[in-house]
Amino acid sequence: MIPRYARKEMVDIWEPATKFRIWYEIEAHACDAQAKLGVIPQENADAVWKAKDVEFDVARIDEIEAVTKHDVIAFLTHLAEHVGAEEARFVHQGMTSSDVLDTTFNVQLVRAADILLADMDKVLAALKTRAYEHKDTVRIGRSHGIHAEPTTMGLTFARFYAELARGKARLEAARAEVATGAISGAVGTFANIDPAVEEHVCEKMDLRPEPISTQVIPRDRHAMFFATLGVIASSIENIAIEIRHMQRTEVLEAEEFFSKGQKGSSAMPHKRNPVLTENLTGLARLVRMAVVPAMENVALWHERDISHSSVERGIGPDTTVTLDFALNRLAGVIEKLVVYPENMLKNMNKFKGLVMSQRVLLALTQAGVSREDAYRLVQRNAMKVWEEGKDFREELLADADVRRALSEAEINEKFDLGYHTKHVDTIFRRVFGE
Amino acid sequence: MIPRYARKEMVDIWEPATKFRIWYEIEAHACDAQAKLGVIPQENADAVWKAKDVEFDVARIDEIEAVTKHDVIAFLTHLAEHVGAEEARFVHQGMTSSDVLDTTFNVQLVRAADILLADMDKVLAALKTRAYEHKDTVRIGRSHGIHAEPTTMGLTFARFYAELARGKARLEAARAEVATGAISGAVGTFANIDPAVEEHVCEKMDLRPEPISTQVIPRDRHAMFFATLGVIASSIENIAIEIRHMQRTEVLEAEEFFSKGQKGSSAMPHKRNPVLTENLTGLARLVRMAVVPAMENVALWHERDISHSSVERGIGPDTTVTLDFALNRLAGVIEKLVVYPENMLKNMNKFKGLVMSQRVLLALTQAGVSREDAYRLVQRNAMKVWEEGKDFREELLADADVRRALSEAEINEKFDLGYHTKHVDTIFRRVFGE
Amino acid sequence: MIPRYARKEMVDIWEPATKFRIWYEIEAHACDAQAKLGVIPQENADAVWKAKDVEFDVARIDEIEAVTKHDVIAFLTHLAEHVGAEEARFVHQGMTSSDVLDTTFNVQLVRAADILLADMDKVLAALKTRAYEHKDTVRIGRSHGIHAEPTTMGLTFARFYAELARGKARLEAARAEVATGAISGAVGTFANIDPAVEEHVCEKMDLRPEPISTQVIPRDRHAMFFATLGVIASSIENIAIEIRHMQRTEVLEAEEFFSKGQKGSSAMPHKRNPVLTENLTGLARLVRMAVVPAMENVALWHERDISHSSVERGIGPDTTVTLDFALNRLAGVIEKLVVYPENMLKNMNKFKGLVMSQRVLLALTQAGVSREDAYRLVQRNAMKVWEEGKDFREELLADADVRRALSEAEINEKFDLGYHTKHVDTIFRRVFGE
Amino acid sequence: MIPRYARKEMVDIWEPATKFRIWYEIEAHACDAQAKLGVIPQENADAVWKAKDVEFDVARIDEIEAVTKHDVIAFLTHLAEHVGAEEARFVHQGMTSSDVLDTTFNVQLVRAADILLADMDKVLAALKTRAYEHKDTVRIGRSHGIHAEPTTMGLTFARFYAELARGKARLEAARAEVATGAISGAVGTFANIDPAVEEHVCEKMDLRPEPISTQVIPRDRHAMFFATLGVIASSIENIAIEIRHMQRTEVLEAEEFFSKGQKGSSAMPHKRNPVLTENLTGLARLVRMAVVPAMENVALWHERDISHSSVERGIGPDTTVTLDFALNRLAGVIEKLVVYPENMLKNMNKFKGLVMSQRVLLALTQAGVSREDAYRLVQRNAMKVWEEGKDFREELLADADVRRALSEAEINEKFDLGYHTKHVDTIFRRVFGE
Repeated sequence: MIPRYARKEMVDIWEPATKFRIWYEIEAHACDAQAKLGVIPQENADAVWKAKDVEFDVARIDEIEAVTKHDVIAFLTHLAEHVGAEEARFVHQGMTSSDVLDTTFNVQLVRAADILLADMDKVLAALKTRAYEHKDTVRIGRSHGIHAEPTTMGLTFARFYAELARGKARLEAARAEVATGAISGAVGTFANIDPAVEEHVCEKMDLRPEPISTQVIPRDRHAMFFATLGVIASSIENIAIEIRHMQRTEVLEAEEFFSKGQKGSSAMPHKRNPVLTENLTGLARLVRMAVVPAMENVALWHERDISHSSVERGIGPDTTVTLDFALNRLAGVIEKLVVYPENMLKNMNKFKGLVMSQRVLLALTQAGVSREDAYRLVQRNAMKVWEEGKDFREELLADADVRRALSEAEINEKFDLGYHTKHVDTIFRRVFGE
Repeated sequence: MIPRYARKEMVDIWEPATKFRIWYEIEAHACDAQAKLGVIPQENADAVWKAKDVEFDVARIDEIEAVTKHDVIAFLTHLAEHVGAEEARFVHQGMTSSDVLDTTFNVQLVRAADILLADMDKVLAALKTRAYEHKDTVRIGRSHGIHAEPTTMGLTFARFYAELARGKARLEAARAEVATGAISGAVGTFANIDPAVEEHVCEKMDLRPEPISTQVIPRDRHAMFFATLGVIASSIENIAIEIRHMQRTEVLEAEEFFSKGQKGSSAMPHKRNPVLTENLTGLARLVRMAVVPAMENVALWHERDISHSSVERGIGPDTTVTLDFALNRLAGVIEKLVVYPENMLKNMNKFKGLVMSQRVLLALTQAGVSREDAYRLVQRNAMKVWEEGKDFREELLADADVRRALSEAEINEKFDLGYHTKHVDTIFRRVFGE
Repeated sequence: MIPRYARKEMVDIWEPATKFRIWYEIEAHACDAQAKLGVIPQENADAVWKAKDVEFDVARIDEIEAVTKHDVIAFLTHLAEHVGAEEARFVHQGMTSSDVLDTTFNVQLVRAADILLADMDKVLAALKTRAYEHKDTVRIGRSHGIHAEPTTMGLTFARFYAELARGKARLEAARAEVATGAISGAVGTFANIDPAVEEHVCEKMDLRPEPISTQVIPRDRHAMFFATLGVIASSIENIAIEIRHMQRTEVLEAEEFFSKGQKGSSAMPHKRNPVLTENLTGLARLVRMAVVPAMENVALWHERDISHSSVERGIGPDTTVTLDFALNRLAGVIEKLVVYPENMLKNMNKFKGLVMSQRVLLALTQAGVSREDAYRLVQRNAMKVWEEGKDFREELLADADVRRALSEAEINEKFDLGYHTKHVDTIFRRVFGE
Repeated sequence: MIPRYARKEMVDIWEPATKFRIWYEIEAHACDAQAKLGVIPQENADAVWKAKDVEFDVARIDEIEAVTKHDVIAFLTHLAEHVGAEEARFVHQGMTSSDVLDTTFNVQLVRAADILLADMDKVLAALKTRAYEHKDTVRIGRSHGIHAEPTTMGLTFARFYAELARGKARLEAARAEVATGAISGAVGTFANIDPAVEEHVCEKMDLRPEPISTQVIPRDRHAMFFATLGVIASSIENIAIEIRHMQRTEVLEAEEFFSKGQKGSSAMPHKRNPVLTENLTGLARLVRMAVVPAMENVALWHERDISHSSVERGIGPDTTVTLDFALNRLAGVIEKLVVYPENMLKNMNKFKGLVMSQRVLLALTQAGVSREDAYRLVQRNAMKVWEEGKDFREELLADADVRRALSEAEINEKFDLGYHTKHVDTIFRRVFGE
C-alpha cells in the first residue's frame, strides 16, 4: 500500500483493529450458536459479549503472538484477558483458525467491494454528465492514431460509461463470489462443530455458507475477485490513455484541471502535464499485478496449505486500496476535465476535408463506379491533400473522372457533419436507456 | 497451439476456412438488411447467396492479400470472383473491416465457449460419479501436507465438483460477455450504415448488438473472457496437484490409469508416473499466460488501434484449444483414476491415533480443563507418538492427568471414525442438491 | 506460433525433424564416449553413425509413440530400424530421456539465441545509420506528451540504439545461461553413466556440462532466458510506441513506409496507418507472456516433475519465433521510416517560443531574481502563449519585470536552437564510442 | 510492504528520510560541480553543505508539497529554509526533477541489491554447510514424485547452492544494470547543465553516468533488475517446495525447526507444519508479480511520461523488502532444518529393491538380452513389487528368464548403494570447486 495513493476509508478495512473486531464478532456469534445447540453453556456465550465495546490492544496481541507464533491463539488469549479465562473457555470450540481467518478475509473483501461499487457510481455519474454535456461536440474519430471520420466527444464519454457499467456488473458478481463464510472445522467435515453454527455466523456477517470448504474457503473465488479488479483497472487505463492523448501538445482537445499554485515542472514553467491520468496508467498496472498470484493461489496442497496467506496479506489491502484511490482520482479527473471543442474542430480540419473520404467512396460506388475504381479515384485525391496540403473537396470537384459520376452538389453534400452525428441519439439510448 | 495438446473440434473453429465462412455469412446477412432498407438492390443481396455452398480458397485469398496487404479486401476480391464483380458491388458497403473481424472473433469465442462448456459437463459428470462412489471412503485430511483429521475421498471429489461448477457458471457469464457483434462503420457512428443492419446480422449470428462500439468491440469484454479461462485453468491445476500428491510413492492413495504397453521411463522400468496431471499443471500455466496480455489489450488508442490483433491471433486459438484439451484430459483422468482405499487407511494410521488429537482436546475442555492446560496435555502425548512411534490412545490412557478428566470409555470413544463422517451427507446435499 | 508472424529460419529450429536430428547426434556422440570408456563395443558406436545422413521419418516415430506413449523410446525404436536392432542395442545406455530432451532443448535455445543476436545486429545497424542521418534534425522533446525542450531525432535513434545494445548484451548472457547440457542419468548421479560421456557430448554440441543436474537441467536458467526475451520485447514496444506517436495525424513527424498498392483501410481511402509498429506492440505482449510461466517452471518436485514440459513446448518455439519476427520487422521499419523534419519544426513552434521557458527561468535566476519570483514571471508569460496564442519572446520583451533583469539582447539569445544541441556530439560519442 | 515480512535494514532504504538525504547529496554534489565549472558561485555551493548534518523534516516537506503539488520543489523549498533562501538560490540549477529522482531511485536499488547480495551469501553458506554435512546421506531420488534411484541429501543441498550461486551472479549483473545516474536536464540534452556535473555526481554516488538519458534513466534497466529478482524468487520457491515435500507426513525426511512454545494448530495439538517454507512459496509470488509491471514500464511516451512512477513507488520497496525477508527466512530454515536420515532409508525401501530396476535393466542388456526384452523382464518383476509388496531382488532371483542372463551374484551386486554415490565427490568438486 502506497500512502500517497490510499484513502482512509479503504485503508481502515485492513487495519489490525478492524480485523480483530471481525474475529471477535465471528467468535461471539459462534458461541451464541453453540449455546443454542446446547454444546456450550449459555452464560459462557453471553460472557463473550462483555467485550462488545472493547477496542482490542493490537500491541498486546502482537506480544502474545511473539511467543505462540500463532495469531488466532494470540487473539483468543487476549480475548480471555477481557472476558475472563474461565468464561472464555468455550470460545473457538470446534473451530479451526481458518474458520475465523477466511471468513474475516471475505468480510473485508465484501466491504472493500462495497466501497469500490460506490466509487464506480461516482465515475459513472461523472461520465454520464460529461457525455450529455458533449453529446454533440464534434471531434474526429481516430483509428491507429490517424484521423478516420467524425464522431462526438459525448460518444467517447458514453463508451467509457458503458465499459465501466459492465465493470460494475462484473464487480457485483465478484463480490458475490467472495461473500461466503466457513465454520467447518479442521478439514471442513463439521466433525467438531455443527453446520448450524456456520449458518448462524454467516447470516450475522451477511455471508452465505460455503457449500463445501476444506479448512479454507476455496481460492478460485478469490482468483475471480482479483481478476475482476484487474479488468476494471484495465478499463481505467483505457480512459486514462484517451485523456493523455487528448492533452498532448499537438492535440490539446482536453486538459486535466490545473489548479492555482500547481507547478507542472520544476524546470519548465510552461508545462501543464496530464499527471493524474499518467498516474492512473501506473496504478492500473499495480492493480493488475495481483491477478496472476491470485490465480497461483488456487492450487493448494490437499485440504489446504498456507502459501496463499502471505500473498493475500499483500494483495488484499494493496489492490483494493489502489483501485479505490484510482477510481476516486478518475472521478475527479472526469468531473473537472477541461474540454476544448474549438481545438477539436481545428484538428479535424488539419487535412482539409480528408476525413470525408469514405462518404465519397460510397457515393461513387452508388453512382455505378466499381468498388476498385472508386477506391483508386478517392485515394489519388486524398494523397494530394495528405502530401500537398490541398483541399479534398476542391480536388474532387476538379477531378474529371469523379465529376463524371458525381455532380458538384452531390460532392458538396458529402461534407456535411450532420451526416456523421445522426445516430448519436440512438446510441445514447442504447447506453443510458433513456 | 501445440498439436499434441489440441482437439480437432476446437482447432476447426480457428481454421482460416471457418473464419472466411463466418465473414461470408456476416457480409451476406448485411446485404440482406441493406436491401430491406432499400440501400442496395435486392438482386445484389440475393446474388451474394450464390456463394452459399462455396468452400473459399484460402490459398487464393492469401495470394490477393500479398498484394493488397489487407485481409478483408482480399476476401472481398475473392468473393467477387464467385459472385461476379458486378453483383458483388454492394458487398461490405458502409462497413469497415472491423465490423467483420470483430463480429467474427466473437462468433468464434462463443463457439469455443460452447465446446468448453460441454467439456466442463464431462468433467463435472466424472467428478460426481466418483464423489458418490467414494462418498464414504475414509482418508486423512491434510493441511500443510501434514495429517490433520479424517475426511473422505468423496468429499475431495465433491469439492472439485463444486469448484468446477462455479467455473462453469463463470464461463457462461464470460460467454455472454463476448456474445456481441458490431456493424457500426468506421468509428462506430453508423454514419454510413443503419443500426438496423447490425441488429439483423447479430440476430442471424446469435449475438447481441454491441450497445456502443467505436470501430471495434471494446476489449474489456475479451479481457474478462480470458481472465475467466485463467481461473478455470487454475482450478484444473488444483485438481491436478491433488492427484499428483496422491500418486507419489509414499502416499499412493490413487494412480492415473496406466495402460498396457505404456512405459513410465525409458531407463527405470518400475516407474508409473502421474504424467497426465503433471501435464495438466503445465497446460494450466499456458492458459493463464493469456490473462495479462488480454488485459493489456483493453487500452486502445482513441477509437481503436490494432495492437490487440496479433495478441488475439495468438491467444484466441491457443488458449481455447489448450483449455479444451486440458478439460478433456482431466475428464479422462478422473473417470479412470485408480483409487486405493486400503492405502488411505494405512496412511491415516501412520502415527497411531494421532489424528484424533483435536477430539481429545475438546473433550478435555468440555470436562473442565482449561484450554491452555488441555492443549499442553494433548501435545505432550502427541509428541510421543510423533517422535517415538507410540500409540496415541494408549498414551492417553496411561496419562494420569488426562485420566483425571476422562474415563477409559470416554477416551476410547474419541477414536471412532464415524464421528468425522457424520455430516458427509449434509455436505453432499449442499453440493449436489440431492 | 502464428504463421503470419514467423520466419522460416527460426521455425526450422523447432521442427520435429530438427529435434530428431539433435537427438540423434547426442545419442551417437554418447555412444562414441561410451565406447572410448570401454562400456560398449566400438563397433556398436560406429554403427550408429550409419544413420548420419538419414532424414528421420517423423510420421513413423509418431506412430510408434502412439503405442509406447513415450517419445524418446519411440525415436530409439525408429533409430534401430535404420541401424539394426542388434547394432543399436547399446544406444541410450545409462541415459535417461531427459538427458536427450533437455540437452536438445538447450541446443535449440542456443541456436535461437544466435539468430536473435543477428537480428539485433540488423536493428542496431539501422538505428545507428538513422541516428547519424538525423543527428542534427531538431525536434521538440516531450515529457508527459507535452512539449518540453528541443532535442534531435538523432538522439531518439541513439537512445534506442543504446537500449537495444544493452538488450543484446543481456541476450548474450541469456544464451550463456542455457548453453549447458546434461548426460547424468536417472537422477543426475552418473550412477549408470560416466561424467566423461557428458563432457564429450557437450563439447561436440557446443555446450558446457551442467555442473549439477538432477534428471533435468535446472529451470532457473530458462526462466532467466525467457525473462531476458521479455525485456527485449519491452524495448521493442518502447520504440514502436515512439513511432506510433510520431505518425499520429496531429504530429506527423514520421511515417512507416507505405508501399504502392497498399490499402490503409477498406472503407477510408485516405488512411495511412502505423500498422507495423502497432503490430510490434502486440507482438511484445506475446513475447512477454512467456516470462511468468517460465518462472513458474522453476519449482519442480524433487529431482524433477514434468509440468514444465508442456509450457516449454509452447513458449520455446512461440517466443523465439515471435521475437525473431518482431526484430526483423523492426529493422525494416527503422530502415525505411519516412522522417519529416519540417513537421518537426512546425510542431515545435506550435506555441511560439514557449519551449524556451526554462532558459529564461535560468537567466532570470542568474540575473539575481529569486527562484520563486523567476518561476512566477516565466509562468505568467507562458500562460499567455498557451491560452491566447501569443509569442513568448514578444511577451517577455514587453514584461517590465522581466526587462528589469534581462536586456533585449539577452532575451533574444535565449531563443537560439544551437544552445540545445551543443552536446549532441558528446552524447553520440558516449553511445557509439566514436 | 507487509510489516510482518519486512526487515528494518531494507525498509530503511525506502524511508522518506533516506530519500531526502540522497536528494540532498545529489543537489549538493551538483552545486560543487557547477561551482567548479564557474556556473554558480563557490560560496553558494559551500553553503549547501551547511545542511550536511540536518535530518530533514518529512512532515514539513509534505506540508509544502500539499501546496506545490510537486515533491522536488517542496524539498528544495524546505532545503532553502535550512541553507537560507539567498544562498540556496542556485541549488538544482539547470537540473530537472528526474535528475534527482531517477538517480536517487538507482542509489536505493543499488543499496538494496547490496543487502540482497549479502543475504544470498548467508543462504549459500548455509546450503554449503548442510551439503557437506549430508554429502553421503542416501535418500531416494524422485522424478514425477515417484521413486527413481538413490541420490544423497548432500546433492540436494548442493544443487540448490549451485542454483542460488547463479542467482547471485545474476543479481550482480542486475545491480550493475541500475548503477547509473543521470543529471542531463529537461530532455537529456545537457542544454542547461554540463555533462561534467553528471560525471561528478555519479562518481560521488558510486554510479556510472547514464550514456544517454532523456529526462529519465531508461526503464529497460529496471525491467531487467526486477526480472532478475523474479528469477531468484522462483529459486526460493524451488527450495521451499522441496522442503515442504520432505516434511509431509508420509515422507518426513526433514522438518523445519519447531521451537518450544510454538503451536502448529489452534485445534490440532499434534501438528508441526512447514509454515516457513509455505510462507516462502507465497513470498516468491509476491516478488514475481513485480516483473510484468516493470516490463510494462519500459515503453514511456517520447522523452518520458510518469506512468512508471506509481508502479515503482510500489514495487521498489515492496519487492526488495519481501525478497530480503525471504532470503533471510530461507537462510534460517536451511541452517536449522532437522534432517531424518533413517526415514530416508525407510522411504527408499518402501518397495523393496524396486529403485534398482534400471541397473538390472542395464545388466540384462549388457548380458546380451535385447533392450525390449530386458525392459519387459524387469517390468514384470517390478509390477509384482509394486502391486503385491514383493521383494524385487527375490523376484529376480526366482525368475528363470532373468537367471538365464544373470547369476545370483550378479543380481545381488545390483543392490549395492555405493554404486549410486560413486560420483558425489566429482559433482561436489564441480559445484564447490574444492
